[in-house]
Amino acid sequence: MNVEAIRKDFPMFENKSKKGFDLVYFDNAATTFKPNAVIQAVTDYYTKYSVNAHRGDYELSYQVDTLYESVRDTVASFINCDRKEVVFTSGTSLALNQIAYGYAQKILKEGDVVISDEAEHASNYLPWMHACETNKAKLEFIELDEHGCVSIEKFKQAMHDRVKIVSLAHVTNVMGCTIDVKEICKIAHSYGAIVVIDGAQSAPHMKVDMRDLDCDFFAFSAHKLCGPTGSGVLYGKYELLEEMDPLMLGGGSNARYDMCGNLLMKNPPYKFESGTPAIEATLGLKAAIEYITSIGIENIQSYESDLRAYMISEMKKLDNVIIYNEKSDSGIVTFNIKDVFSQDAATYFSDKGISLRSGQHCAKLLMDFLDTPSTLRASLYFYNTKEEVDYFIEVCSQITPETFLDVFF
Amino acid sequence: MNVEAIRKDFPMFENKSKKGFDLVYFDNAATTFKPNAVIQAVTDYYTKYSVNAHRGDYELSYQVDTLYESVRDTVASFINCDRKEVVFTSGTSLALNQIAYGYAQKILKEGDVVISDEAEHASNYLPWMHACETNKAKLEFIELDEHGCVSIEKFKQAMHDRVKIVSLAHVTNVMGCTIDVKEICKIAHSYGAIVVIDGAQSAPHMKVDMRDLDCDFFAFSAHKLCGPTGSGVLYGKYELLEEMDPLMLGGGSNARYDMCGNLLMKNPPYKFESGTPAIEATLGLKAAIEYITSIGIENIQSYESDLRAYMISEMKKLDNVIIYNEKSDSGIVTFNIKDVFSQDAATYFSDKGISLRSGQHCAKLLMDFLDTPSTLRASLYFYNTKEEVDYFIEVCSQITPETFLDVFF
Repeated sequence: MNVEAIRKDFPMFENKSKKGFDLVYFDNAATTFKPNAVIQAVTDYYTKYSVNAHRGDYELSYQVDTLYESVRDTVASFINCDRKEVVFTSGTSLALNQIAYGYAQKILKEGDVVISDEAEHASNYLPWMHACETNKAKLEFIELDEHGCVSIEKFKQAMHDRVKIVSLAHVTNVMGCTIDVKEICKIAHSYGAIVVIDGAQSAPHMKVDMRDLDCDFFAFSAHKLCGPTGSGVLYGKYELLEEMDPLMLGGGSNARYDMCGNLLMKNPPYKFESGTPAIEATLGLKAAIEYITSIGIENIQSYESDLRAYMISEMKKLDNVIIYNEKSDSGIVTFNIKDVFSQDAATYFSDKGISLRSGQHCAKLLMDFLDTPSTLRASLYFYNTKEEVDYFIEVCSQITPETFLDVFF
Repeated sequence: MNVEAIRKDFPMFENKSKKGFDLVYFDNAATTFKPNAVIQAVTDYYTKYSVNAHRGDYELSYQVDTLYESVRDTVASFINCDRKEVVFTSGTSLALNQIAYGYAQKILKEGDVVISDEAEHASNYLPWMHACETNKAKLEFIELDEHGCVSIEKFKQAMHDRVKIVSLAHVTNVMGCTIDVKEICKIAHSYGAIVVIDGAQSAPHMKVDMRDLDCDFFAFSAHKLCGPTGSGVLYGKYELLEEMDPLMLGGGSNARYDMCGNLLMKNPPYKFESGTPAIEATLGLKAAIEYITSIGIENIQSYESDLRAYMISEMKKLDNVIIYNEKSDSGIVTFNIKDVFSQDAATYFSDKGISLRSGQHCAKLLMDFLDTPSTLRASLYFYNTKEEVDYFIEVCSQITPETFLDVFF
């Protein structure tokens, strides 16, 4: 993997910060930079065949429709499933809401249980909380292990016969823990429960294989995978997609209806895709997957893993840094600078050209577990370098309760 | 209005059809071409500040956040409302589903009535059908007048005390009828009903003023207004937005929550905007509105009206054409070629470089009214020309049950 060559594919790296620093972008868990191939795919739509998909029967419309539908094949091959199991959504959040509304609220009975944990993103917690409340079901929590992760052992302890749905992040967005989806599915299925996986932080960084993992639903976003915002994928086993009700109704998803309230929906995946889709974003997703695949998702994973290990080892040499997730195995590093509010530290980093996040990272339940009101999060991707990490470490070492004020005065 | 200069802003017009004809794009009710300003706005996001909005506290994030939030001001000024009343959605369909789910299903009681009509798009019919079914309310229909339109007289006849919601298209997508929203709101409000307006076919073509129309909800899509797909606007009176529940839950929309099921949402519009939004599409919407505004929406409306009048007058000279909506006042012309299936005719048009739609146009209830299984629809925008209409008329005149077969053999 030639990172220097890869970086040339991303126009964002040509920019400098206001003060003239190179951009060090460590907020990849929030969203990622876009390579030229993705930008070109979006622009091609605007300049070459800017018409609606699924709508017309003229030359351009047919062309877009064919291209748009080909994205389903690209996704199916990327995550190893059938193209009929690929539902296009606006992103992971809508996908998870779709499952909670259209499947959970349909099947959950009073006293049934949905299982979650404190490390989940709000988008994989609030929809379940709402579904449980609506259906008088219970939301129960897997106890996190000492690293803030869901272990198989803790998962087993949480499982019981009333559990109908398990919904977990494949990789959590703050602790960066990877769960063993395959084993969890095996256990959950033995209880008759289905497993929903929030793959927003995994699909961009590691091989995810639906047939192998055997999860029942899986969701991810294009924009965390070098693709456009406003596009995402909901995978579901076909028989579950057939059972699930659509969250949205409208044009394109119905086969026929009348004035007496009769409605026949199309088969999945189309029954979930009402209205004009995010066409160019979906075409951008295709380009993004092709780009990622050309580099090799296994190469990406192994590169990130090495880079993280290096970053952690360097951070541990600093005595002003607290690391919250040393043991996790993703490109996410959650930390604080001793005695400096995370927001203030983030401002200092930003002043030096380093972009990273501070706050609760949409995982508000977790802050009690970590016993801190907020954290800093550096999240890596394959275009980040050892040199960037070195610079980051240098800046880390400068921040003290006294020096961070420099950026304000 | 200099149409020749305007057309130079749209790269799509540089293309030719496969057989070398100039592209005559008459499917603007499905989606519109994009001007360079919109393409540039989207590309700028990818190349200059490709980070998440509402998420970070670093330089780039702040920049995107400010730009993203400024789109609310642009929209508010375009439709004359408060910026707090502008909710970003993925499009009109999601917006209408949001209202049906979050407002209608919350307030409708058994026996309450929602009013619709047969000329509505599926996205403004099926969500209401579903809401009524869920809440044991009734969906009633305004009788269409002889032109397939909702007249004030017919609307008055349909209104009564049990009507809680009236949901109508400002301009219907097949008949192209414009309703008198202001008068309808006055009448509906006198019964204590609220009015939802599907503005997908109006906002791109005429001045819509929320304060003046006094409707309660209004929805439109960016992509029918020269903007990107995957972006749209839901306007709601602020007190109704406060009352309405979100269709989606997740990151960004909540103020706080805990493990005991307590959840405090942010104020509108943010409580409806869970998850990473379609950032570049929304920035593209801003560019689109600015572009439309620079031409002048009144100029656009008057130009389209003249062009339609010319088109209708020329079509009436042909004896192989049936026009279904001669009397309507939008840029939509619905017709058939005598004794030729609409799909076959569309293929003939396409072969000559003319893009228009055939079928039921997502308004399946209407085909009974028109007494035809499907129609052709030509829909104009301000970049269309008299010369294009002349060419269209020439092609129209060629199509007979014998000649349309030429394109197949």
